[in-house]
Amino acid sequence: MKKKKVGVIGATGYTGSEIVRILSQHPGVEIALITSESRAGEKFSDVHPFFQGIVDDILYTADKVDDTDLDLVFLALPHGVSMDYVRRFAGRDFRIVDFSGDFRLASPEIYEQWYPKNHSYPEGFRDAVYGLPELYTDSIRDAKLVANPGCFPTGAILSLAPLVHAGVIKKEGIIIDSKTGVTGAGIKASATNMFSNVNDNFKAYGVKKHRHTIEIQGILENVGGALGPVQFTPHLLPVDRGILTTVYARPDSGGRKLIGAGSGEDPAKTVEASSNGKAKLVELYRDFYRGKPFVRICDNPPTLKDVRASNYCNIYVDYDDRTGNIIVISAIDNLVKGAAGLAVQNMNVMFGFDETMGISHIPVNP
Amino acid sequence: MKKKKVGVIGATGYTGSEIVRILSQHPGVEIALITSESRAGEKFSDVHPFFQGIVDDILYTADKVDDTDLDLVFLALPHGVSMDYVRRFAGRDFRIVDFSGDFRLASPEIYEQWYPKNHSYPEGFRDAVYGLPELYTDSIRDAKLVANPGCFPTGAILSLAPLVHAGVIKKEGIIIDSKTGVTGAGIKASATNMFSNVNDNFKAYGVKKHRHTIEIQGILENVGGALGPVQFTPHLLPVDRGILTTVYARPDSGGRKLIGAGSGEDPAKTVEASSNGKAKLVELYRDFYRGKPFVRICDNPPTLKDVRASNYCNIYVDYDDRTGNIIVISAIDNLVKGAAGLAVQNMNVMFGFDETMGISHIPVNP
Amino acid sequence: MKKKKVGVIGATGYTGSEIVRILSQHPGVEIALITSESRAGEKFSDVHPFFQGIVDDILYTADKVDDTDLDLVFLALPHGVSMDYVRRFAGRDFRIVDFSGDFRLASPEIYEQWYPKNHSYPEGFRDAVYGLPELYTDSIRDAKLVANPGCFPTGAILSLAPLVHAGVIKKEGIIIDSKTGVTGAGIKASATNMFSNVNDNFKAYGVKKHRHTIEIQGILENVGGALGPVQFTPHLLPVDRGILTTVYARPDSGGRKLIGAGSGEDPAKTVEASSNGKAKLVELYRDFYRGKPFVRICDNPPTLKDVRASNYCNIYVDYDDRTGNIIVISAIDNLVKGAAGLAVQNMNVMFGFDETMGISHIPVNP
Amino acid sequence: MKKKKVGVIGATGYTGSEIVRILSQHPGVEIALITSESRAGEKFSDVHPFFQGIVDDILYTADKVDDTDLDLVFLALPHGVSMDYVRRFAGRDFRIVDFSGDFRLASPEIYEQWYPKNHSYPEGFRDAVYGLPELYTDSIRDAKLVANPGCFPTGAILSLAPLVHAGVIKKEGIIIDSKTGVTGAGIKASATNMFSNVNDNFKAYGVKKHRHTIEIQGILENVGGALGPVQFTPHLLPVDRGILTTVYARPDSGGRKLIGAGSGEDPAKTVEASSNGKAKLVELYRDFYRGKPFVRICDNPPTLKDVRASNYCNIYVDYDDRTGNIIVISAIDNLVKGAAGLAVQNMNVMFGFDETMGISHIPVNP
Repeated sequence: MKKKKVGVIGATGYTGSEIVRILSQHPGVEIALITSESRAGEKFSDVHPFFQGIVDDILYTADKVDDTDLDLVFLALPHGVSMDYVRRFAGRDFRIVDFSGDFRLASPEIYEQWYPKNHSYPEGFRDAVYGLPELYTDSIRDAKLVANPGCFPTGAILSLAPLVHAGVIKKEGIIIDSKTGVTGAGIKASATNMFSNVNDNFKAYGVKKHRHTIEIQGILENVGGALGPVQFTPHLLPVDRGILTTVYARPDSGGRKLIGAGSGEDPAKTVEASSNGKAKLVELYRDFYRGKPFVRICDNPPTLKDVRASNYCNIYVDYDDRTGNIIVISAIDNLVKGAAGLAVQNMNVMFGFDETMGISHIPVNP
Repeated sequence: MKKKKVGVIGATGYTGSEIVRILSQHPGVEIALITSESRAGEKFSDVHPFFQGIVDDILYTADKVDDTDLDLVFLALPHGVSMDYVRRFAGRDFRIVDFSGDFRLASPEIYEQWYPKNHSYPEGFRDAVYGLPELYTDSIRDAKLVANPGCFPTGAILSLAPLVHAGVIKKEGIIIDSKTGVTGAGIKASATNMFSNVNDNFKAYGVKKHRHTIEIQGILENVGGALGPVQFTPHLLPVDRGILTTVYARPDSGGRKLIGAGSGEDPAKTVEASSNGKAKLVELYRDFYRGKPFVRICDNPPTLKDVRASNYCNIYVDYDDRTGNIIVISAIDNLVKGAAGLAVQNMNVMFGFDETMGISHIPVNP
Repeated sequence: MKKKKVGVIGATGYTGSEIVRILSQHPGVEIALITSESRAGEKFSDVHPFFQGIVDDILYTADKVDDTDLDLVFLALPHGVSMDYVRRFAGRDFRIVDFSGDFRLASPEIYEQWYPKNHSYPEGFRDAVYGLPELYTDSIRDAKLVANPGCFPTGAILSLAPLVHAGVIKKEGIIIDSKTGVTGAGIKASATNMFSNVNDNFKAYGVKKHRHTIEIQGILENVGGALGPVQFTPHLLPVDRGILTTVYARPDSGGRKLIGAGSGEDPAKTVEASSNGKAKLVELYRDFYRGKPFVRICDNPPTLKDVRASNYCNIYVDYDDRTGNIIVISAIDNLVKGAAGLAVQNMNVMFGFDETMGISHIPVNP
Repeated sequence: MKKKKVGVIGATGYTGSEIVRILSQHPGVEIALITSESRAGEKFSDVHPFFQGIVDDILYTADKVDDTDLDLVFLALPHGVSMDYVRRFAGRDFRIVDFSGDFRLASPEIYEQWYPKNHSYPEGFRDAVYGLPELYTDSIRDAKLVANPGCFPTGAILSLAPLVHAGVIKKEGIIIDSKTGVTGAGIKASATNMFSNVNDNFKAYGVKKHRHTIEIQGILENVGGALGPVQFTPHLLPVDRGILTTVYARPDSGGRKLIGAGSGEDPAKTVEASSNGKAKLVELYRDFYRGKPFVRICDNPPTLKDVRASNYCNIYVDYDDRTGNIIVISAIDNLVKGAAGLAVQNMNVMFGFDETMGISHIPVNP
């Protein structure tokens, strides 16, 4: 099989190094180009020394795209920058997987409500496909432009999609309490990601206003129809990689019937009803994700290390008859399933490869 | 002033070492006795070497209580063990601050629903006072037996007390998503607290059934009347000390009026209504905790290191007009405000000392 | 190519899970058997849940070896236990890679001086080959029993081998100051590896008497002739994986000539002499490790994450003309290059595979 | 007793916040002034929010010194900046404790060899006293300008001083292998102190050329006469606070006699000789530090948490008869004994206070 030629635009950040790590051992592709505006002329391994002797390619500026035969390009660029590259590459033959938030939302108008910038390429929204293969395989297959999901949305949407798709929860009152590793904040040094501000520490941030809120809201509504506004609260963990998402939702009447919910008043029955409810929910999730190789429905609450450095999303679902809440807990590696691994999964779908090709790494634990 | 004589029963754990750390520099007391059944005969600093040259007292068995003149005894013992000591010390003159969960709940019956043991001293409930001075100063002052609160309940109750006391939130649907440091699990080595299972990791545990749930429920109802069942989900952080609690509640009609809640539908007004709502809530919290030296109402979400090694509880409260949720986030050090510092605060109240005596340590950060 | 059949004896520990992680994606072998005496009957993924859906093989007791067609067996067993299995498997056709320290030393007598046990199978020493392919490829190729090196010795020996082989350092006064991650202490919960004893902490241990001392001494003398006693001091880092070794040695007169050492008295010349000395040493190391795919000679001191989850050993060598010391710093992942990856590298040599087959993972960083 | 008035010049860094933490609870002083050029006009607790409600003093520029009645000023300023302030305050009545490296060395000439700057106030060296009260109490008592030691030198010098003072080690071949927490690098965000570059990681830095080398060399020679050049290698630990120093030295003939060193060739005698040697060395250290309240000679190798957030220096000393090396291991908190606590200890001596006043904090562990 002739290998496909891919390029990575913007390779100095964590997603850049992570996708090169994955692609350089992917049997179906060849990395034909790696670019960095700020470090052009240096070797990739000068920027990321752990690649010494493995990936010593010279970095080019993005102009080099014009001289390079490419089947697909990954844009590992910040929000607000990607859009200009998508515009610039509009007439080109190669396909694009864009890591930024620039084409994930439903419209430029919504984008401008949540991102502090006017959108420079509204036309891009027409063709952009949301790159979550667990939900949108068919449209991804033929997409010219795939908007790779945000890290928090990946975990949150996979946690809730079976419930909203089945229409078994109330539209109102969904709570998404997420906890992320530091690499989600990027590679640029700042007070936020200083060791002594993070180590042995923990905090919430972006309360009420994190931009991933609207991305989660938009996709869940696309999957299951209109919802009340979801509450999304991110927290910063003293870990490098990983997002754990704890979701609270309430079954509607259909949901209560499905899971055999009790009144919650009789302690003896509560335990039994909770247990039955859990079993029914697990069944619902297993059915929904049947044939999806990277989602694992687990009997126990997952840990971040259960998925670290892998493309898996582990999901635990439970029902508490005492409170009447459904609780869903999911774990992903934000740099893999939440970014670079998911991007390659999208690429696999786009190229007609096996969906797991080159991304079936076993988690690294401990 | 003549110093009060205090004893610490069970000094080999983290709360034991922490209370000795605090008491040994407390100007109003003298440590007259430290006991450990398993390490009796050794020096306290053999068990906790960082006390070498500072606290080298010999450890005795608890029998030594009979020969010792004591004004107050701290029981730093596990759940289910403390009750036997309380029974044994029933006729003695000294007062007791008990760290365990044995006398925190409303009745032995409720205890036996949530703890896996028959209660050996139901009579103790009659006199036991819940030791949260921010709520119960008066009863603590004269109490013979103070049940020192659990670490999670301390953070959760302080987060919610102003709302339930004011009666401004709906009784149903309270979500308490808590994240704790590892020391909460005690000093005994186990798979749960092994470095490689915790470091760079994160997980939920005790989902639906953690015993602190009923303690939180009980005290909040004591403060503000009957509530629907609260949902409490603890998570394990890769940090030594600290509990961060994120609470979600919904204002009732009175609450919506108080905070000037909008419809949540007009984005422009949402921001303003959220901001006003936050201000009203901050005012409510400031009023409620006026004169309470250890609660700090903060403009920004607190971090664990903002309170580490101190007796402070930092609280942030906010309102999200888009979702209609009140969000409260609190931070404590689980070994200080969540255990030993709080115990000394109780002791200060019981002895008529200034409430802050010996526990006004400034947080250690970083 | 027909796949070789391999077995893993003792799979509940970290090296057990790590070698299964590597072998299960190795193109040249099939895992025909995984055993555990304590967890037999359960699934491998019950013991290590992060393998759920990936390696769900049933665990057997070691007796199952008798019914299984095997080309090679990995013994992932503790010191003092392995020897009995080696004895038991003595007449069998399959070859053995032993992770323990039972056959690494020159003789049973030396073993008994440093390990607290009589050796039960002294005959094994006759055939055992020390499994460091960078030094002993030829003997490993045909070995029946390969003693996989200790984690500290791997880093220390690779750091010093070029110097002792070239005979350019003084025999006396070699200092090896090593720092290891916690997984080196194994998976069993103990005070040593509790999170709160390790996190934000650091200490030396095994001062003067760590058993890897004699292993390092023995192999270095095998490589370069008699040496004075080496000083080896291990320290415990708050990290999961990795060993960083800092070595101090003094050039002998030949060495001083080689590196152009100055008198160390003229500050201006010191910098130049140091720089020239470094270049000469780098050349020596590059020559020594030419064609060895897993040793990388680096321009800057390596970090643990530069090699994490990979089979690389990064080495930095320098000369300080001011003090007259050669300084060598190396980094490995103790579970990969210091254990499971190295074992597979040995297996590759034994089977005549490409030395890098199945172990060319790129480091996971961050 | 009338409280002394002190000022802190430069309070936005870690040493600034740490000294305010200590001084604000010191019974003998009053903080009369806190300055910051960059944050003047804000509250101290705006810069360090964990002080909210505790130290809310307004920050001034350093000009405010002119209007303030001060007995002593702490300069918590960077190297190369302090010298200008010392010059500027030359005629003033108040005394100075300077945290920087500007006046720690023997002469401006030596300073300029190791620091990249011409010294702007060479006259300052005349009066400057090296502020290590364990060695120089008498000169500190009357000093106008105290140069507070560097964090590494504090640990290294206290480890070696008894040996060089007693004249029992060889002048050549001293190795100092140090490991520090991240706060030593200061509060400014940089790639060096980013969480993901430090967490689960470890590395050496400043090999051969760290500026603390010459400070250690200079003071040790002041204590015990000329030495060969010491080798000092710092490493960066994934911890907030603490320096652990491992020192290797060789007894000279007097030293070998003192410690009863054997030939190192008879294994049976080696253990005994090592043990006797250790006892003799412990005695030497106990004698040397008799009456020094902050040095603890320990039976076991210290850990960083044994001294965290305290002013203690724990020292372990041992002799290895097999290799003939003396090994010394010390632990300090770099922000307390290595900076702010030591500065207050110096102040206590200067003011004639009890040396431990306000700095007898018990370590915070875990």
